[in-house]
Amino acid sequence: MGTELQSGTNRSYAIIGTGAIGGFYGAKLQQAGCEVHFLLHRDYELVRQRGLRVDSVWGNFTLDSLNVYNDVHQMPACDVVIVALKTTRNSLLTSLLPPVLKESGAVLMLQNGLGNEEAIAPIVGKTHILGGLCFICSNKVAEGHIHHLDYGTITIGEYAPDYQPLGITATLRDIAGDFEIAGIPIQFAEDLLLARWKKLVWNIPYNGLSVVLNARTDEIMGNEYTSLLSEQLMREVVAVAAAYNREIPESFIQKMLDHTANMKPYITSMKLDYDQHRSIEVESIVGNPLQSAIAKNIPVPKMAMLYAQLNFINTQITAKSPLSSS
Amino acid sequence: MGTELQSGTNRSYAIIGTGAIGGFYGAKLQQAGCEVHFLLHRDYELVRQRGLRVDSVWGNFTLDSLNVYNDVHQMPACDVVIVALKTTRNSLLTSLLPPVLKESGAVLMLQNGLGNEEAIAPIVGKTHILGGLCFICSNKVAEGHIHHLDYGTITIGEYAPDYQPLGITATLRDIAGDFEIAGIPIQFAEDLLLARWKKLVWNIPYNGLSVVLNARTDEIMGNEYTSLLSEQLMREVVAVAAAYNREIPESFIQKMLDHTANMKPYITSMKLDYDQHRSIEVESIVGNPLQSAIAKNIPVPKMAMLYAQLNFINTQITAKSPLSSS
Repeated sequence: MGTELQSGTNRSYAIIGTGAIGGFYGAKLQQAGCEVHFLLHRDYELVRQRGLRVDSVWGNFTLDSLNVYNDVHQMPACDVVIVALKTTRNSLLTSLLPPVLKESGAVLMLQNGLGNEEAIAPIVGKTHILGGLCFICSNKVAEGHIHHLDYGTITIGEYAPDYQPLGITATLRDIAGDFEIAGIPIQFAEDLLLARWKKLVWNIPYNGLSVVLNARTDEIMGNEYTSLLSEQLMREVVAVAAAYNREIPESFIQKMLDHTANMKPYITSMKLDYDQHRSIEVESIVGNPLQSAIAKNIPVPKMAMLYAQLNFINTQITAKSPLSSS
Repeated sequence: MGTELQSGTNRSYAIIGTGAIGGFYGAKLQQAGCEVHFLLHRDYELVRQRGLRVDSVWGNFTLDSLNVYNDVHQMPACDVVIVALKTTRNSLLTSLLPPVLKESGAVLMLQNGLGNEEAIAPIVGKTHILGGLCFICSNKVAEGHIHHLDYGTITIGEYAPDYQPLGITATLRDIAGDFEIAGIPIQFAEDLLLARWKKLVWNIPYNGLSVVLNARTDEIMGNEYTSLLSEQLMREVVAVAAAYNREIPESFIQKMLDHTANMKPYITSMKLDYDQHRSIEVESIVGNPLQSAIAKNIPVPKMAMLYAQLNFINTQITAKSPLSSS
């Protein structure tokens, strides 16, 4: 795919969005010896002075000395830019990405939902675009303080126009090499869009209903009607994926239902945002999949209803808290 | 229809459920000279001692001396029994109704939703069953104290098996006569089931969404997606009504939407119950209409989703507050 990524293990990394996800993975990479440059916003001054503390089930550590910035124009162009902003802030990427990205570099989108890779394609030119799906429980508990509670695997796949599957590319292998040295388990997605849709099978019902019903996953699964509703929403997601030639087997739905019914009570990321009066990722997690359904004339009445409800709730959050997106 | 109601204006009334609705209309009837017997529960002792206070836009008054009971077996059998319990307590009617009902009497169900008349038919034998739809803003603001804020018209229709339309019957006219003497505006429904479905066109979207979204009607109509969702729910209700040969014209939907968009901010009765942690009328307002749709194979995906959400919320209310139904 055109340009080649910097070879060897001396790739430089930029972290756009040093929160629970970007901060954690960036800190792990630096801990393993990588050159990492962190873009911060509210935490900038504190992290510059006191460093970044990571409490992790993989072992606690603190980075005392970091390359921190509150302005992308002060940052060097890097080989790999990890985007770990909330998707509600993706409109900023037009200005944030170009200064930090080497022409021969790659962008790794560690974000939820659908359409994030496609949206930045016009901004980044010939740069490789990768998508990453994080299976991790990690929270920012205070400024400059991240708590990694469980899991941590990232599934990565490379993006091509129209989400054509690219298989396991050299770029994926290179970046996976760095992550694995840093102790971060990586799985490859030969078809990024399929991986995105499979994650949406879980994310749409549980993120959505957890906010609308103000509930944990165990509560949703503990009621026969909302458990069935979760399954029906999953079926709608699978139907839309099929319209894009991504076949998700029936057994996958049952696996997700069983897994969720049996796992520990869980508060979804959207519910965490909601509880903290922050804007929720409605568009990337539900709105974009809904638009995909509409474009292919796939009936998704329940997904549409969920979108309307989440849009309503998000409008109320953002009306009450003008700073909620920051 | 078999038996004849006591003629003249000396009909006796029993009020089962002396709350915001039953208490108000019962007090108006007594004020106009009717013999009225009130069944009370929590308010019994206070009302027995101090009477019933009614603050009303039609004029304030207090009834100092009432026939009050906390046990139906102490009550006389009456010509007309007005059932104004919340529908969540309708399982009590098997024991509450027979002692207070003359064989030649009538039962008037002043309740929300669908199926309430049908449900009591096996209990009351040959007694006339009437349904009443109250268009009123009235709250019980304290024990023995009712506040009637606005409106007050009742639409009444007579029930027959399978909700066959009976037109304007003698029983309807007799009871309407008493109500009109008491200053209560009455409209006749020649077809009770049609009247019930038309009210559901409004009640299902707005009662339901007001609880799920924790919102007033103006907020629901102020968001383009939830305004559209209300309309889509209305269309589902109209489709089910049509399957029971009740034609509700397209113009009625637009009238309800316009009316709701233009009326003052309104908190629905289900939302009032929800706000006060009382069980909500899920079954009569959404569950029974949903069962009607299922019985006729009418697809109502959004009504089904609304039901699941309300069932979940109601289960949480009743789990937290074991006395919520009382």
